[in-house]
Amino acid sequence: MSDKHLSTQFDAELSGISTRVLEMGGLVEAQVAQAVEALVQFSSEQAQTVLRTEEQVNAMEVEIDHALHSIIARRQPTARDLRLLIAISKTIANLERVGDEASRVARTVQRLVNAGVSSRLRLPMSDLSFEAELAVAQLRKALDAFARLDVEKALEVLKQDDAIDKEFDGLLRKLITYMMEDPRTISSSIDLVFVAKAIERVGDHAKNLAEAIIYVVKGTDVRHNTPEAAANMLR
Amino acid sequence: MSDKHLSTQFDAELSGISTRVLEMGGLVEAQVAQAVEALVQFSSEQAQTVLRTEEQVNAMEVEIDHALHSIIARRQPTARDLRLLIAISKTIANLERVGDEASRVARTVQRLVNAGVSSRLRLPMSDLSFEAELAVAQLRKALDAFARLDVEKALEVLKQDDAIDKEFDGLLRKLITYMMEDPRTISSSIDLVFVAKAIERVGDHAKNLAEAIIYVVKGTDVRHNTPEAAANMLR
Repeated sequence: MSDKHLSTQFDAELSGISTRVLEMGGLVEAQVAQAVEALVQFSSEQAQTVLRTEEQVNAMEVEIDHALHSIIARRQPTARDLRLLIAISKTIANLERVGDEASRVARTVQRLVNAGVSSRLRLPMSDLSFEAELAVAQLRKALDAFARLDVEKALEVLKQDDAIDKEFDGLLRKLITYMMEDPRTISSSIDLVFVAKAIERVGDHAKNLAEAIIYVVKGTDVRHNTPEAAANMLR
Repeated sequence: MSDKHLSTQFDAELSGISTRVLEMGGLVEAQVAQAVEALVQFSSEQAQTVLRTEEQVNAMEVEIDHALHSIIARRQPTARDLRLLIAISKTIANLERVGDEASRVARTVQRLVNAGVSSRLRLPMSDLSFEAELAVAQLRKALDAFARLDVEKALEVLKQDDAIDKEFDGLLRKLITYMMEDPRTISSSIDLVFVAKAIERVGDHAKNLAEAIIYVVKGTDVRHNTPEAAANMLR
């Protein structure tokens, strides 16, 4: 068997794993959008759908991780391939955390619906939806960058993370104002603070994903740097 | 050069990496304890010390990760060694996140001190300290389990995570009561909610660490299971 043949088998396995990662990414992306929609609609059913998907996402993480371990153990990946395989392992851990954030939001929706607070609660709906749109867009961009190993796109994700953080800060200030105006809403408003925080963290996970992609392609570890510093490190 | 010789070199490298991981673990463990102490004492200086350590922790993560990649690329680790190396990679990512939580607490302390809210704020000090003690103990136990690849100890960590979650829930209820009694404290109390949440997450990271150790030793993936189910899977 020639080296070329081996390498082609390896590539086929790798491409199979990448496809599964993108599927997993699409799944958690949908979960996040659905969880926020469940909140905006105050829909316990939609929240239930998000929670049903959780098990599927967890199973995918375990399955892809096993496939990765198996491919590393059987093949002798080159340094670059190895970077890719380890980065994928971290990527799916991140995607699983995104799914966790979505589930957290979904469970909050169920608690709020069960407590019957919908009429009392002042929901900064459009702000929450906007924050979620930003986060989902970041996640999608990071997954796109992963699919094409596109460093420029990964850098864009790093640059745009700040926008979500600002959106979260604005939401937090708004919620604090609501709580001060009507202290009876404090308990439920804190639930919404955590929802806003969960969405902000989805953005953080997208950023981690982007950093992993840059490491795979360039071999440069840009973590713990500003987006500008990261871009400079790659020049 | 005999296989035995090669294996001994590998073991030496691996043991060097493990030592660094434990050093990193000790560092973030101290960060968490110090950050909570800074809060209890309302000490901006202690908070500063935590933040100064952040860079060191980040640098250690990057350094250990590079050592891992290098050892996998140069040696041809067995399936079990490979599991260990990948688990270490995830472990240091977790430890770095613990350091992030400590830094988050430290930045909150600085903000609270700068805002001069110490006199107004009702701090559930003993609760926060107790939650932090639980979290640090869990982290220490997980690191112990890592040092000895001790599955029983790792299982204990899984079992005890629930205690921190309960402590967090109690703290949250207390803080909500304070806020309702004096809405002027809402803004600062929310900072404390995030502190309590950060400490709870330290416990989550310890749990992730414990799960990675079990996977290394037993090859069994116990993530996404209750502690009881996890223990049964290992029987």
